[in-house]
Amino acid sequence: MLFHVQMTVRLPHDMPAAEADALKLREKALAQELQREGVWRHLWRIAGRYANVSVFDVPDNAALHDTLTRLPLFPYMDIEVQPLCRHPSSDRDNDY
Amino acid sequence: MLFHVQMTVRLPHDMPAAEADALKLREKALAQELQREGVWRHLWRIAGRYANVSVFDVPDNAALHDTLTRLPLFPYMDIEVQPLCRHPSSDRDNDY
Amino acid sequence: MLFHVQMTVRLPHDMPAAEADALKLREKALAQELQREGVWRHLWRIAGRYANVSVFDVPDNAALHDTLTRLPLFPYMDIEVQPLCRHPSSDRDNDY
Amino acid sequence: MLFHVQMTVRLPHDMPAAEADALKLREKALAQELQREGVWRHLWRIAGRYANVSVFDVPDNAALHDTLTRLPLFPYMDIEVQPLCRHPSSDRDNDY
Amino acid sequence: MLFHVQMTVRLPHDMPAAEADALKLREKALAQELQREGVWRHLWRIAGRYANVSVFDVPDNAALHDTLTRLPLFPYMDIEVQPLCRHPSSDRDNDY
Amino acid sequence: MLFHVQMTVRLPHDMPAAEADALKLREKALAQELQREGVWRHLWRIAGRYANVSVFDVPDNAALHDTLTRLPLFPYMDIEVQPLCRHPSSDRDNDY
Amino acid sequence: MLFHVQMTVRLPHDMPAAEADALKLREKALAQELQREGVWRHLWRIAGRYANVSVFDVPDNAALHDTLTRLPLFPYMDIEVQPLCRHPSSDRDNDY
Amino acid sequence: MLFHVQMTVRLPHDMPAAEADALKLREKALAQELQREGVWRHLWRIAGRYANVSVFDVPDNAALHDTLTRLPLFPYMDIEVQPLCRHPSSDRDNDY
Amino acid sequence: MLFHVQMTVRLPHDMPAAEADALKLREKALAQELQREGVWRHLWRIAGRYANVSVFDVPDNAALHDTLTRLPLFPYMDIEVQPLCRHPSSDRDNDY
Amino acid sequence: MLFHVQMTVRLPHDMPAAEADALKLREKALAQELQREGVWRHLWRIAGRYANVSVFDVPDNAALHDTLTRLPLFPYMDIEVQPLCRHPSSDRDNDY
Repeated sequence: MLFHVQMTVRLPHDMPAAEADALKLREKALAQELQREGVWRHLWRIAGRYANVSVFDVPDNAALHDTLTRLPLFPYMDIEVQPLCRHPSSDRDNDY
Repeated sequence: MLFHVQMTVRLPHDMPAAEADALKLREKALAQELQREGVWRHLWRIAGRYANVSVFDVPDNAALHDTLTRLPLFPYMDIEVQPLCRHPSSDRDNDY
Repeated sequence: MLFHVQMTVRLPHDMPAAEADALKLREKALAQELQREGVWRHLWRIAGRYANVSVFDVPDNAALHDTLTRLPLFPYMDIEVQPLCRHPSSDRDNDY
Repeated sequence: MLFHVQMTVRLPHDMPAAEADALKLREKALAQELQREGVWRHLWRIAGRYANVSVFDVPDNAALHDTLTRLPLFPYMDIEVQPLCRHPSSDRDNDY
Repeated sequence: MLFHVQMTVRLPHDMPAAEADALKLREKALAQELQREGVWRHLWRIAGRYANVSVFDVPDNAALHDTLTRLPLFPYMDIEVQPLCRHPSSDRDNDY
Repeated sequence: MLFHVQMTVRLPHDMPAAEADALKLREKALAQELQREGVWRHLWRIAGRYANVSVFDVPDNAALHDTLTRLPLFPYMDIEVQPLCRHPSSDRDNDY
Repeated sequence: MLFHVQMTVRLPHDMPAAEADALKLREKALAQELQREGVWRHLWRIAGRYANVSVFDVPDNAALHDTLTRLPLFPYMDIEVQPLCRHPSSDRDNDY
Repeated sequence: MLFHVQMTVRLPHDMPAAEADALKLREKALAQELQREGVWRHLWRIAGRYANVSVFDVPDNAALHDTLTRLPLFPYMDIEVQPLCRHPSSDRDNDY
Repeated sequence: MLFHVQMTVRLPHDMPAAEADALKLREKALAQELQREGVWRHLWRIAGRYANVSVFDVPDNAALHDTLTRLPLFPYMDIEVQPLCRHPSSDRDNDY
Repeated sequence: MLFHVQMTVRLPHDMPAAEADALKLREKALAQELQREGVWRHLWRIAGRYANVSVFDVPDNAALHDTLTRLPLFPYMDIEVQPLCRHPSSDRDNDY
């Protein structure tokens, strides 16, 4: 089941650079693991902003919540979720 | 080059059903043609709303504009555009 | 799987009363059928507004979309959807 | 009498983890006590956010206020309240 | 039990004057009846706008909803409801 | 002359409890003095929020401003002011 | 007593030109009469918009309301009112 | 050339009182100098808020910017600018 | 003097096509005349929307207002104006 | 390819002046280098605000993102991006 997720990162300006770097490294590692597992189906940067647009493929709402709250940057992100379903005009093989 | 586009359709309540149906048929035909050409890369329905989330792959801004304004439903849609680029944590083969 | 749905009805002022009444009757009949089937889990009126707060129990996002778009009042409603999951502090038997 | 309450938690980033954990423990204990007493009728997590949707059953507005302000996380939450009443299309046994 | 209600009237510009006048007369009659009964506790005009600020005294949420939806102008008003309770610093005799 | 005032209190999370308590005591004392003088005509708590709805009776705009800025919590409040006047449908003795 | 008023005019697109012209003529005549009487203290056009910024000098809130609702364009305007008072840094002779 | 400027002051709660007082003194001195020079044409307090509504008379946009950024409180203000011009219904001698 | 203007066109859906076409033709003719005169300094389409971003070079606010209200599409546009001035980091020859 | 970018700078009030000055110097140096390269096509100050309106000319979305994130003030700016294309009524030589 697919969900559209837009994440905007807002790190506090007074977070030490080393702490921020460590967070980002862990975030990247988990993001890549979730991509390999097929959970994080799409991941794009929004040009000009510290933000991304993503599509997650999870069994249900609870799995979506567990996945997002595992992200190291979760406490520093504004997150908007929209449930997706197949569009009647879509004939793409993998958009569902 | 990829663009994230969210479209919300607002047909006037007094549009005759036949006119609305004809518009939707033409919209669907063009949507499928654009998918076959690889221009309309992704197309999802937002659950519970007469709206979609899409990703377009076009050579430049002008091509994006020309594509969107060709859509039969264009005059009846609220459209939000966000330019996308590759995310540094992405290792998907086709997210760019 | 549960979804929180808030619906605000905006009937056009120039809709003939008979048409509005017929729509509402069909809406009520379907609402009650969906309650009997366990799909429309909760349904409350928001005091002072022509609006409701609801909880739907459906197998997936597509079923939610199909259910909501079957509602006779769908073209006249503003609908906001939020996916729900079990709260870690909940010990209610049926809130999931 | 029922009230729909949506709570979004915004803990300051510089709150010590021990203090946050203690607050959450006390919040959970009180939430469960209020559920046992039938006051906190429903409690759901909104997927992807540190927020919940709840329904409270209280004798009056004052009781709602007293209950919400007793919550240990109250000073850190954005709270939206909507008074509910029975929906004319509802035939659920306990939605009032 | 007290509720704060702000009502903004938006009559369609194409409503015939006679129809608007008749609506307003019926609204005024009911408003005065509800004041005599003690239900519509306060009623003020907001200077410069076709809007009012009111306080209603009703037994519960359902009574509030029934009262507001009986108003002849109800279909043409934006209504915002806020439940009130006694303020700990209030020593007024009748603000509860 | 009457003014509708809605005040939302936002104390900084790092204000020492003793300082906050002292502020609130002084606020309460002044609120009660202003009520005795007939200036603070109504004062209600909004259920579930650290906020109030009030009606002030003052000779003019300047008196309103002087009164509100004397409040010890003034620097920590979001304040919205709406000038009121008698409603043509009001027959209450003291709503002006 | 001074009030800051911002008015935005939104005439319906289907209002006959003659009707619109008549309304504007009557509006202008009354605006000039109110300026001569000293009630409409200032009147400026906001560049690029069908809107104005004004300052009214009236005895009280009721007089402000009566003045604004007498304007022929009142039913077609969005009006925002802010009560003004003398600024402690002002040394202008007539800004109060 | 006239500009309408609304300024809302937001001093940080942790600014030492002496620093705030010094800023305000310097702000007041410059405000009065600019009034004497005819640049700060009008200056009103918005009742109930730490904010003002002003009209500036400057040769051009650059002069407006230079004037506003010279204000000692500039870094702590939300500023909204609207260019003004003579209103066709105005017959005031000095509203341009 | 430069002004940044963003215009969004909202033609009524029931405007006859011939009337809309005639309006657009006149709009284009005037836009090109104003460009030749150097008044309409820049004009760009916002990709995916019936909207433009423009820069006007006019002697003062009144000239800006006169220019914008001469546009045939003026009654159908949402217009946002921002006064511009030279940026201290700019070394472009013609950005002022 | 052109992009319209609006940047609003929000430096933390507690940033040491020397650090802020150094950031601004580096920002200015890079802004001028990007202007010389033709990448930062236009740069204007919005009068009365610590903000600018800019037009960038870059090969694609990724280049826009790389350019903006290289700016020393990037972590302290709210940035809004709109893709531009040639307007059909434009006959300017360089607006594309």
